[in-house]
Amino acid sequence: MLVYGKHYHSIWLDETDKLVVKVIDQRKLPFFFEIKDLRSVNDVYTAIKEMVVRGAPLIGAAGAFGIYLATLEDKPAADMHRHLRQSADLLISSRPTAVNLPLVIDSVLERLMKIAEVNALKEAALDAALETCRSEIERCRKIGVHGLEIIKDISRRKNGGTVNILTHCNAGWLACVDIGTVTAPIYLAHEKGIPLHVWVDETRPVNQGARLTAWELGQQGIKYTLVPDNTGGHLMQHGMVDLVLTGSDRTTRKGDTANKIGTYLKALAARDNDIPFYVALPETSFDFNISDGLAEIKIEKRDSGEVTHVAGLEGGEIKSVRICPEDACAENWGFDVTPARLVTGLITDRGICGASEKDIRKLFPDKFR
Amino acid sequence: MLVYGKHYHSIWLDETDKLVVKVIDQRKLPFFFEIKDLRSVNDVYTAIKEMVVRGAPLIGAAGAFGIYLATLEDKPAADMHRHLRQSADLLISSRPTAVNLPLVIDSVLERLMKIAEVNALKEAALDAALETCRSEIERCRKIGVHGLEIIKDISRRKNGGTVNILTHCNAGWLACVDIGTVTAPIYLAHEKGIPLHVWVDETRPVNQGARLTAWELGQQGIKYTLVPDNTGGHLMQHGMVDLVLTGSDRTTRKGDTANKIGTYLKALAARDNDIPFYVALPETSFDFNISDGLAEIKIEKRDSGEVTHVAGLEGGEIKSVRICPEDACAENWGFDVTPARLVTGLITDRGICGASEKDIRKLFPDKFR
Repeated sequence: MLVYGKHYHSIWLDETDKLVVKVIDQRKLPFFFEIKDLRSVNDVYTAIKEMVVRGAPLIGAAGAFGIYLATLEDKPAADMHRHLRQSADLLISSRPTAVNLPLVIDSVLERLMKIAEVNALKEAALDAALETCRSEIERCRKIGVHGLEIIKDISRRKNGGTVNILTHCNAGWLACVDIGTVTAPIYLAHEKGIPLHVWVDETRPVNQGARLTAWELGQQGIKYTLVPDNTGGHLMQHGMVDLVLTGSDRTTRKGDTANKIGTYLKALAARDNDIPFYVALPETSFDFNISDGLAEIKIEKRDSGEVTHVAGLEGGEIKSVRICPEDACAENWGFDVTPARLVTGLITDRGICGASEKDIRKLFPDKFR
Repeated sequence: MLVYGKHYHSIWLDETDKLVVKVIDQRKLPFFFEIKDLRSVNDVYTAIKEMVVRGAPLIGAAGAFGIYLATLEDKPAADMHRHLRQSADLLISSRPTAVNLPLVIDSVLERLMKIAEVNALKEAALDAALETCRSEIERCRKIGVHGLEIIKDISRRKNGGTVNILTHCNAGWLACVDIGTVTAPIYLAHEKGIPLHVWVDETRPVNQGARLTAWELGQQGIKYTLVPDNTGGHLMQHGMVDLVLTGSDRTTRKGDTANKIGTYLKALAARDNDIPFYVALPETSFDFNISDGLAEIKIEKRDSGEVTHVAGLEGGEIKSVRICPEDACAENWGFDVTPARLVTGLITDRGICGASEKDIRKLFPDKFR
């Protein structure tokens, strides 16, 4: 998508130096647009852990590139498979909630374990990483095509009046490789000239909405308004939201869906005000092995410093200010689970389905064997 | 209540100079404990507007002191009544949502309009302000006595296990003159040795939870954990909350209740997880003239800078950092309305009642004439 008018992906292989993977440092956005070089498995591990890159699909792609970088490390050929397995374990441990990461890495690893020769391994790993990126983009594009129909319907019902969409966190192109999941239908609708406006939840504690969604929507020329996470209920009570659209880090076979903490509260408000609540996700964000999201999805706990401190720009620099007493105890759960009963539908790359095992199985019969 | 071991009210008349009203500058908390002098109606207007003082009961008390300061201003005796009426209008305009302010000011003004002599006016105005403070404290104390029974019940049901209470914003002693509304039962239960723990919502955008509730609970030695506003739903889903307790800026005769933006979302989560949701309020926070909170309570919109910027401590100074793109559009509604159907009960100074016209009328028959 566009950054100051130029097209970018959120992750890519350096054009001249094939030993270097490039990412946008998302911790610095929207204040500074900086590209970061990743040259080793450890670089990728740290980039995921510290949220230089974030978003389930992008984390998956970064994981694939991480395995590629692992193949470049200087190991005896006999140790390479063990080294890749260790690298995979390290990468998978970087963030526990998103399902894409282990899925992608396991699938890449399966391919590589059949190859003994080191140069062939490197080549296959690079192919796998590039293929991961291509398919993520393709999945987002399809989510866009399907989701567009929902926006078109609302626009028609409103006789072409502005469609107001509320979103939480960032499930935009920055969270994916390109286009985004939640943003895919939005960008498509915008292209088609459908009048749109997006309510952007700031998404404490890390403020992905205020920092990333606001920035990427602004860069593509989409109208948006930033609001505190507390505001959505009031907006819905007063008819200012037509559609809630969020991403997902892990969705069960029954349609329970883990997403950024606070999503559940917006789903409750949508239900209470009869507003459609859709989750946009690629098939890689399903975990078909589990049913009960509340019982089975492990919710990551992060550093409490993200709660006690807020980062932002002051005097031309990014500063972190403390917002509470010095000795305050704080807790920081990264995600919550929205039960399937609150989800109007899932917008996937294979089409839209209800958030139930029956409906999900219809779209993904091959995953239910 | 205690500040570094010494007892304070949130507003008081200077002991030596009776022309000066003292308040704690709540914008500086928890970073600096500073006392501010108010010497005129304009000082009081600005202090309320800029949230040097905030919280419905404290705003009411400040309004009463504002009228007292108005009587001290140098006006011809013949103009004094008109001057007081104008001062009252100015003060009432400072914050539109809280009901206490117009209620208190109108009642004080009614008393003063019967007095012509200027010195008698000054004396009566001071009496009225001090009386306002005394009754606010007394009402909080009674809320504490009634609310304590709810906490005791939960403690009994948990066989003396820790009672986990979630609160939003600050309805503590800082929002009142002393003791607080939400905090009154908490402080009483703590005194009785009932094990307690409070989940403190940070309460964006102004962070009254992170700055004020955390600080005042810490000062009284109550265990608390600061969480982002997004976290409460997850906590309730996982059995980590026994009781939600919030304040109210205006409650209708039918029990709809306006409180800090985001309260409605917590009420929805409490209902979805079968957790009692109580609102603690003095009778001065009822607006017996209105029924339908969503249609009739005017919701204050505040400066969007409170959304785009966050204040906190860095390098020993309070700094304000920008958390979003420079050109971001943002909106800032101060309150939302929780419909009566989501409220388990109202803890008032006259006792606990259901959030319905029938139950409220039973406790306040004199207000329903």
